[in-house]
Amino acid sequence: MVQKIILDTDPGIDDAMAILFAEAHPDISLEAITCVYGNATIENATANALFLKKKYSLKADVVKGADKPLERPPVGATTIVHGETGFGDFHAPKIEDLKADPRPAYQYIIDSVRSQPGEITLVAVGPLTNLALALKAAPDIVDLVKEVVVMGGAFGVNGHRGNVTPYAEANIHDDPHAADLVFTARWPTTIIGLDVTQQSFFTRQYLDELHGAAGEPGEFIWKISRFYLKFYSQKLGLEGCHVHDPSAIAYVIDKSLFTLREGPVRVVTDGPAEGHTIQKFDGRPYPHDEWQDKPSQRIGVAVEDKRLLALYWDTLVDYGKR
Amino acid sequence: MVQKIILDTDPGIDDAMAILFAEAHPDISLEAITCVYGNATIENATANALFLKKKYSLKADVVKGADKPLERPPVGATTIVHGETGFGDFHAPKIEDLKADPRPAYQYIIDSVRSQPGEITLVAVGPLTNLALALKAAPDIVDLVKEVVVMGGAFGVNGHRGNVTPYAEANIHDDPHAADLVFTARWPTTIIGLDVTQQSFFTRQYLDELHGAAGEPGEFIWKISRFYLKFYSQKLGLEGCHVHDPSAIAYVIDKSLFTLREGPVRVVTDGPAEGHTIQKFDGRPYPHDEWQDKPSQRIGVAVEDKRLLALYWDTLVDYGKR
Repeated sequence: MVQKIILDTDPGIDDAMAILFAEAHPDISLEAITCVYGNATIENATANALFLKKKYSLKADVVKGADKPLERPPVGATTIVHGETGFGDFHAPKIEDLKADPRPAYQYIIDSVRSQPGEITLVAVGPLTNLALALKAAPDIVDLVKEVVVMGGAFGVNGHRGNVTPYAEANIHDDPHAADLVFTARWPTTIIGLDVTQQSFFTRQYLDELHGAAGEPGEFIWKISRFYLKFYSQKLGLEGCHVHDPSAIAYVIDKSLFTLREGPVRVVTDGPAEGHTIQKFDGRPYPHDEWQDKPSQRIGVAVEDKRLLALYWDTLVDYGKR
Repeated sequence: MVQKIILDTDPGIDDAMAILFAEAHPDISLEAITCVYGNATIENATANALFLKKKYSLKADVVKGADKPLERPPVGATTIVHGETGFGDFHAPKIEDLKADPRPAYQYIIDSVRSQPGEITLVAVGPLTNLALALKAAPDIVDLVKEVVVMGGAFGVNGHRGNVTPYAEANIHDDPHAADLVFTARWPTTIIGLDVTQQSFFTRQYLDELHGAAGEPGEFIWKISRFYLKFYSQKLGLEGCHVHDPSAIAYVIDKSLFTLREGPVRVVTDGPAEGHTIQKFDGRPYPHDEWQDKPSQRIGVAVEDKRLLALYWDTLVDYGKR
């Protein structure tokens, strides 16, 4: 069954990998790319999305979203990981003949979800500001969205705790207040955090071989990932990169890749642990408990990484042949 | 070697177990009992300490301390666990002929530490308000204290996460701001949290047999623990109780009972996770890191529980014979 998704994203290198994955897979209909600050500024993120729309003739609308978090001071674009404009050493040329949808992303999300109740899956792989703004402006959408899938957070499973602080993942750290709103809203949410995204790894060799096998998309992914791999090699001592944003798309395509754990999720919004995500999963009563009245959500705790890597490979190789 | 300790405590049933343990063991010189609100109100905690001083002819000074946390609204005495006045069903008679030291606890701590540099170990088994007030008034004491040993916190080791909230232990939850001050001060600190105290267990049978073997102290411990065991049985489904506060004393007596893990510790001070204790122990650099400039402390991650139970037993049985 084809699933309609709105991909909320801050492209971003692994965001581009996720966008092409979603576009390429026959079971997904990529309805829109709603942009948000994060890996890049909102201007660069939106320009990069428009560039991809043009380059790959995407039917997806491109929509400009929030330029800063709800409450906290902005952290700033992650140029050390994603390069000056978001695609590593590659600077996308400005697309003159395409424009972003005139609405702000949160309004686009509200309108889409209301017009197609029960049909839209929101896949968010950047800071959750657009989704939080949509929730604030239109609380009714919690009953109209099919599902929410988030790449973000780190729950300490498999030893994965954080990447931008010792206990926070970048997307959640960028806007912890938005994340707490999204995770405690009464819509069905699955969170694919570092606990599973750091369990899947694109080796340098995998990306080199995809370059040869997946035609132009394989070449483009290879090109923008040179900077990313330099960061991984120099800063983390790893030859390749974790499969962050594409893992959220993989979950939409094939839920059986992941093992999930149920329970309400809260986010620390202030202090040294800001952006730390915490799931209550024991169901026990406590004298004080600010999880107990929140809806149970799902987090990923294990992934069949070989199957996920094969799914990405097969999807991109098929796409490269079109 | 005999170690001089000031025991900062909120008696409290397991606090009384710890006080008698410290008094009974020949390697410890119990110099003072500085009281704090927590399991009981400050009035009841101080009255209970004076009762023990009288009953057991303790040479330790009894000192009244803080009646409320530094910043957060008071949680209130834990009467559901420790009974109306702190010793379960037993209400200590008022001691007319003994008085608490006239100084507030934090001042007593400062004066003692300054007059005996390098000699005093502070063992804190209640909310950390007195220690934090001492630190604020006299930052120089960090270099004068021999060691700080805290019963408190929960680091998720061995699956132990919290007891008053899903992710916070009572002593730290009672005053998270004080705890963050104490844990980030540059004095050598060891934190004995639920990760290890919930790994040691006084069974109902152990306490029954101690009643017979340890004379009057064994009888008193048995008497005050009836209420405590009822709470454990009815609320937690356990026949017996965890060895919380006595574990901190056990650490002072025999450090080899515990396996420790090194790294700076921070405390979440606000929001749903307030009182959550987090240690950074991987030594990795992060773009944002509010642990890295804080001193490395030690937390307990494993305990030889059978040896700890035997140490408590032998110490109390010997004491009962005096």
